[in-house]
Amino acid sequence: MNVLIVYAHPQPRSLNGALRDFAVQHLEAAGHHVQVSDLYAMQWKTTIDEHDAPQRNPAEPFHASLDSKQAFLDGTQRDDIAREQEKLRWADTVIFQFPLWWFSMPAIMKGWFDRVYAYGFAYGVGEHSNAHWGDRYGEGSLSGKRAMLVVTTGGWDSHYSARGINGPIDDILFPIQHGMLFYPGFDVLPPFVTYRSSRVDAEAFAKITRDLGKRLDTLATTAPIPYRHQNHGDYEIPALTLKDEIATGLTGYAAHVAHVAHVAHVA
Amino acid sequence: MNVLIVYAHPQPRSLNGALRDFAVQHLEAAGHHVQVSDLYAMQWKTTIDEHDAPQRNPAEPFHASLDSKQAFLDGTQRDDIAREQEKLRWADTVIFQFPLWWFSMPAIMKGWFDRVYAYGFAYGVGEHSNAHWGDRYGEGSLSGKRAMLVVTTGGWDSHYSARGINGPIDDILFPIQHGMLFYPGFDVLPPFVTYRSSRVDAEAFAKITRDLGKRLDTLATTAPIPYRHQNHGDYEIPALTLKDEIATGLTGYAAHVAHVAHVAHVA
Repeated sequence: MNVLIVYAHPQPRSLNGALRDFAVQHLEAAGHHVQVSDLYAMQWKTTIDEHDAPQRNPAEPFHASLDSKQAFLDGTQRDDIAREQEKLRWADTVIFQFPLWWFSMPAIMKGWFDRVYAYGFAYGVGEHSNAHWGDRYGEGSLSGKRAMLVVTTGGWDSHYSARGINGPIDDILFPIQHGMLFYPGFDVLPPFVTYRSSRVDAEAFAKITRDLGKRLDTLATTAPIPYRHQNHGDYEIPALTLKDEIATGLTGYAAHVAHVAHVAHVA
Repeated sequence: MNVLIVYAHPQPRSLNGALRDFAVQHLEAAGHHVQVSDLYAMQWKTTIDEHDAPQRNPAEPFHASLDSKQAFLDGTQRDDIAREQEKLRWADTVIFQFPLWWFSMPAIMKGWFDRVYAYGFAYGVGEHSNAHWGDRYGEGSLSGKRAMLVVTTGGWDSHYSARGINGPIDDILFPIQHGMLFYPGFDVLPPFVTYRSSRVDAEAFAKITRDLGKRLDTLATTAPIPYRHQNHGDYEIPALTLKDEIATGLTGYAAHVAHVAHVAHVA
């Protein structure tokens, strides 16, 4: 398959650099085609601004959303944005790899989403009516593709546990996994998280790469997180609240994950 | 008091621009001193990289965290970073104003946190032992100061409600409010959120500014969100999980907010 790795770390000689190199080699050895968007190496333009819509009328105030829509429709986007969109079209699976800085992605990767996710490409797609609120949250331009986060963090796993002080890692990643990846249609695989990143010795690194290797070997078969589809009946439209009979009594992020019924197998 | 507004929006002729102008005028009319860090107007350097630690040894690999620590200690940080830290020291209250893009702040503001929050300034402060895990989450360089988010979003309030598809707004903002603001010591006031930002007409704008004006008038007296302090006995150290007798049975973000007991008043 075709795998795109969108990668944000300033230093190739780092744990992240080593994991990126491992992933590329492992995937290519298995016969996959790999492209890497190494945002620091590309000197990725991080901030969306009026230069991203070169053909716009400069007499009008710049509008990040509407000008990105027009540039996308007209084919006048900056080349760097169009190239990343083309890589996304090419990819079957996209891996987003980054260190968790301040409980989110580095600014350079946030700027990748802010700029590459143009209106008409990643949002504002499909009919908006009282029966269908756009092709999003399970539908969209990137549906049929898979995505996975590969994240490192300096904190301990207990700090990110159900009662850990930072909040549960699944909740911290929800706005990314559900809000940035499921939103335009990706199937989102469980994340691959490495804790205490500054304390990884050779033994720990060997275990991490073994585990990551298994995840890379099963990219096509791992079950995605079963986020609920927006337009398949679970939500009121246009309020986009869960219907009373869905996840009754539950609030918050967990209510948007469908618990898959266990299937009894006869041996 | 001294109020710093850290502001990220590319277009002055916008709802955000109008709210920013309103806030400055309202605060100054009340006798406060106001500074604005208008990140787009400043052409804020968004991406942390080796140029942020000019005195480092270029033969060694750049390390975002350790090099920021050394530059902070040595007084060799870039001027733009040092200036923002000085504004933070000056401020009694800091307002962070931005449009919610992809369920987080614009990249340019994330880059403000990535760069201004140096090791030794906003984290890595204080003793780390089995009784005290650094001055953070309620203690730290910015303790005694107040912070408040002013956020606009295109979605409806129902989309961000307890059972709304985007997730509850308080959960989306938790990594910012708790992870970026409470962490280095800020007292965090409830956020001021405007929904359906593209549909604000003159009547709605009048109501929004009335409400925002009230929040600005009460910056010094509004009760902060009662996040639990890390080092005051609620958490096991160093696991940093809540002790069994604290918020028993609760998991997730809500467990880190102390519910204030009601005090009975005798009339």
